[in-house]
Amino acid sequence: MKDRTLEEYLESIAAATPTPGGGSVAALCGALSAALSRMVANLAIGKEGYESVQAELKEEDATAYDAVITAMRLAKKTDADRAARVRAMQSAYERATTVPLDTMQACSDALGIALVAAQKGNRNAISDAGVAALVAEAGLRAAGLNVRINLAALKDHALRAEIEKRLEAILNEADRVGHDVLALVEGRL
Amino acid sequence: MKDRTLEEYLESIAAATPTPGGGSVAALCGALSAALSRMVANLAIGKEGYESVQAELKEEDATAYDAVITAMRLAKKTDADRAARVRAMQSAYERATTVPLDTMQACSDALGIALVAAQKGNRNAISDAGVAALVAEAGLRAAGLNVRINLAALKDHALRAEIEKRLEAILNEADRVGHDVLALVEGRL
Repeated sequence: MKDRTLEEYLESIAAATPTPGGGSVAALCGALSAALSRMVANLAIGKEGYESVQAELKEEDATAYDAVITAMRLAKKTDADRAARVRAMQSAYERATTVPLDTMQACSDALGIALVAAQKGNRNAISDAGVAALVAEAGLRAAGLNVRINLAALKDHALRAEIEKRLEAILNEADRVGHDVLALVEGRL
Repeated sequence: MKDRTLEEYLESIAAATPTPGGGSVAALCGALSAALSRMVANLAIGKEGYESVQAELKEEDATAYDAVITAMRLAKKTDADRAARVRAMQSAYERATTVPLDTMQACSDALGIALVAAQKGNRNAISDAGVAALVAEAGLRAAGLNVRINLAALKDHALRAEIEKRLEAILNEADRVGHDVLALVEGRL
């Protein structure tokens, strides 16, 4: 999907086929967020006033780059899974739950990356770190809907309880980190 | 920008140039949201069980199509404006405030479209309507950060007060509509 133009991608979402859909868009939100955090870091690399955090900024750029790649892979995987689920029903529900859970984790990682961008990145681009946080949170919550809609169909109750626990943990952590990023951004508006 | 591949777009965001940045991503969120709502409507057009709402579904698809186009235009406009602002500073601040405000409005429209999708679209795709709402809200709040970061620089106090009022109104409406969509989705999880 990464080779598609934005226009083609938007058209393929809108089409009367279940894929690509919300799972793919949730993962794309993680990728967009991490790309914005890369920009906020890159705008401070080699710039006056950021001498003391150059190593951290370079690491941030590398971490965020990996996060973009991971999220785009999950976007593709989500689509493949949804297509498989339409064919196989019950047997595919487990993966239909764990892939969006991985997307939640990828968006949670992107949110942590946005926090570092807001703390250490270019201060003139801090609103972009705020956008990165908002978009990562939306992706995380969106993927959470996809986890929950498939969870009810899981027969394995132990697995279900484990997934519910991880879902809650990621949502709580996201609340905390999202609040921290937005507090930093609001403090500069 | 619509002719760019997703990969190129993500790379251009990450680059050490202020544009494309958060403004463009905010507008893209509006487009992604409206595209998802189109899918939820399209999956119900011509399907059994949706006979009584066919006309509304077709109107929804058309309205959402327009919303995608408007949002993508704003994404392009935001980039051009940010580049202009870097050159012209103060003189460009007014447009730098009104364009993200238009993006907020476009995302607000997308949110209304997501509500119709959740109410009348394919019930098996209702989580996609939920994703549409979450992504539209993120875009709306993200554009709001861009409005507010530029607002302080506006010398025209009457215009500033007017923009602040519109900002508040859009945020309050978004809270309400977003809550309505998510309540519909949660009721089906």
